[in-house]
Amino acid sequence: MERVRLTDNLELSRLVYGMWRVADDADITPGHVTAKIMACLDQGITTFDQADIYGGYTAEAVLGGALRANPGLRDRMEIVTKCDIVAPVGRHAGAKVKYYDTSRAHIQASVEASLRDMATDRIDLLLIHRPDPLMDHHETGAALDDLVAAGKVRAVGVSNFRPWDWQLLQSAMKTPLVTNQIEISLGHLAPFTNGDLAFHQRHGHRLMAWSPLGGGTLMSGDSPVGPVADAIANAHGVDRAAVAVAFLLAHPAGILPVLGTNNLGRIRAISDALKVRLSREDWYRLYTAALGKEVP
Amino acid sequence: MERVRLTDNLELSRLVYGMWRVADDADITPGHVTAKIMACLDQGITTFDQADIYGGYTAEAVLGGALRANPGLRDRMEIVTKCDIVAPVGRHAGAKVKYYDTSRAHIQASVEASLRDMATDRIDLLLIHRPDPLMDHHETGAALDDLVAAGKVRAVGVSNFRPWDWQLLQSAMKTPLVTNQIEISLGHLAPFTNGDLAFHQRHGHRLMAWSPLGGGTLMSGDSPVGPVADAIANAHGVDRAAVAVAFLLAHPAGILPVLGTNNLGRIRAISDALKVRLSREDWYRLYTAALGKEVP
Amino acid sequence: MERVRLTDNLELSRLVYGMWRVADDADITPGHVTAKIMACLDQGITTFDQADIYGGYTAEAVLGGALRANPGLRDRMEIVTKCDIVAPVGRHAGAKVKYYDTSRAHIQASVEASLRDMATDRIDLLLIHRPDPLMDHHETGAALDDLVAAGKVRAVGVSNFRPWDWQLLQSAMKTPLVTNQIEISLGHLAPFTNGDLAFHQRHGHRLMAWSPLGGGTLMSGDSPVGPVADAIANAHGVDRAAVAVAFLLAHPAGILPVLGTNNLGRIRAISDALKVRLSREDWYRLYTAALGKEVP
Repeated sequence: MERVRLTDNLELSRLVYGMWRVADDADITPGHVTAKIMACLDQGITTFDQADIYGGYTAEAVLGGALRANPGLRDRMEIVTKCDIVAPVGRHAGAKVKYYDTSRAHIQASVEASLRDMATDRIDLLLIHRPDPLMDHHETGAALDDLVAAGKVRAVGVSNFRPWDWQLLQSAMKTPLVTNQIEISLGHLAPFTNGDLAFHQRHGHRLMAWSPLGGGTLMSGDSPVGPVADAIANAHGVDRAAVAVAFLLAHPAGILPVLGTNNLGRIRAISDALKVRLSREDWYRLYTAALGKEVP
Repeated sequence: MERVRLTDNLELSRLVYGMWRVADDADITPGHVTAKIMACLDQGITTFDQADIYGGYTAEAVLGGALRANPGLRDRMEIVTKCDIVAPVGRHAGAKVKYYDTSRAHIQASVEASLRDMATDRIDLLLIHRPDPLMDHHETGAALDDLVAAGKVRAVGVSNFRPWDWQLLQSAMKTPLVTNQIEISLGHLAPFTNGDLAFHQRHGHRLMAWSPLGGGTLMSGDSPVGPVADAIANAHGVDRAAVAVAFLLAHPAGILPVLGTNNLGRIRAISDALKVRLSREDWYRLYTAALGKEVP
Repeated sequence: MERVRLTDNLELSRLVYGMWRVADDADITPGHVTAKIMACLDQGITTFDQADIYGGYTAEAVLGGALRANPGLRDRMEIVTKCDIVAPVGRHAGAKVKYYDTSRAHIQASVEASLRDMATDRIDLLLIHRPDPLMDHHETGAALDDLVAAGKVRAVGVSNFRPWDWQLLQSAMKTPLVTNQIEISLGHLAPFTNGDLAFHQRHGHRLMAWSPLGGGTLMSGDSPVGPVADAIANAHGVDRAAVAVAFLLAHPAGILPVLGTNNLGRIRAISDALKVRLSREDWYRLYTAALGKEVP
């Protein structure tokens, strides 16, 4: 599995396992969660993507259960997690509305809860989950710098930021932001042309892609992309999902797809996507099908 | 009242009194206009927002009447005015179409007319009223620089500019642009996420907000924001308008709301908005109600 | 005819003759094509705009026929051509889908074909025809730099690029991009306000305008711009098309309109547009009519 170096002391696996539904599985025992992690590690997938809010603020503890039960497992993984969404559920049930909180106090408290729930002493990569229209970039930037300086967080990035959000936060930080985890897929093509991808490519930032299968709609029977993806999949001896991931892997920006499934069999097949080297023509066949019309 | 320093020799009051309807009042005698000004000064509101075009090119003269009648009053105020809109009314009745004029000749003539009409020897802050798609930035920038050098204008800014309009004009100027007066309110949320606010925050520019009450729709009975604003207003012992202004004041960009009313009683209550310190949660309750859906 | 200097060794004529339909004419003999070229040269129009894909990859050869038949003609002209569109027609009939190819191999092969088809040893200005969402800017940038270094191409630019596309490609190049050929006209006003024009004005780039007559809709009987354009045309003793071109020429960005017609009579009248000096008011009369409402 290709390794992606983000900083002097942080490397991720090119494919990332997403844990946003890990708490929704019928079996959340440490043994079952450990089996999923091992299935990833067996393929070289060492990076696991979390967020404080996943599972209604419970997914990190589900992962923590497995880490507590398996001393030594933590050191074989990189953990990405996120903060700033406050939704009226779980530990934030008292909130009157869903909102974002990029205050120093909230970020610090969120990181402490993440460390405790995941039974670890460090987060490899912390992301601000959503751009907060009320962000005080000086306060947020300093809070993130301080977490890195304190060693609680090895690197910092963002998620769902537009270029101007990135520039605002970065302008108030000493530490470089190392990634932006965005929605980009055959089901969400906008970043290919709206300047988001171009901005990050120009500056050499690595992107992570959430929902790389397009939120499942791509996988449904009547997706317009389906027949094209199937034809290409057949030619490469993989399934439609692998082609959708290969579509992202083929881009020169070096995107890291975040793949999540609770199905052990599917976990074992995630890295099939790496077998597919899409030709430019096939890339555009997929792009065009997803766009719904030929390019101008 | 908080003071906002824009340059070495220009400070504005945090709340600004908008005079766009001063000429529409039934009473435009110097005595009545002076009463409005005094009601502002009593609260520490020392900054008055004008434009050549307000009142069909008559509002500046209405203010001028009060200034002529009250020697010494001018020195207790900062006057903001604007130019570049040519509409077929008043002194421009002969125009065949509404248009923008950022030529040197027009800006100079407009400033001379503003000085004469307002019976003053200086404009504290001159804004280009609207981005002009036909702007020659070299010509416009030099014209503005020259007005500052001549002492006729103490500082220069813009209004309704997008970031690229600002960068274009600024690139051809020696004097720094000090503000952008934009529409931003619970009735116009776009700048919170479209990069406008982020751009100005990043560069430390102070923004002014026109129509901070959302053009009156927020004040109407059936506004979706109404019930939320009322609940927060009741908790703070103020009215709905004060909450709408507090929504802007709470933002870390340090926005200066421009408030206009011809009602003397309401003028005396403008600074009530400063009493309200919105919590982050209440800010998002308002934002969410105005957005019409919860944040993603 | 005004000359526009793009680099130390490249000047274009302010008006450019567009050859996108040259292969569609009933008469594509060298003699007839030469007559068109001479009609342009007689007016000082020395710049001719091509693309590999025009006429289904045949237009360059039609021009080449005339150049072969008239030794010496080539040195009186500047030739602009473009590459990166692969459409399933002509030499690319085997393509399964229309796509863009900014790979080094494709650009080199396209340039070689253009040189051969046009019977010339150099392209004065090569443009990347469309932004390619799969562009590897390092590869594309180096390929363009190398073509300039090899003398096969005298200067390089782009077409239909947004500012972020330009910045991405330029960031990986030694040679400066010298122009962006975009759609801008009374039929396509977006670049006047969406930041495209502002970006290029700020950096002093010269723009070329394709479809300056708005794709013909402006010329139709029921265009809302028609009556205004006709009134202005009558006042200047020219036709509606000349006014549409003058609308672009009046802009301070110094736009180079690309005009194409196979009608010899119309070719001889192209430079009529240069006779018209639009007043600011007339410019806005046209702009407003095209916008469908007055400016804010």
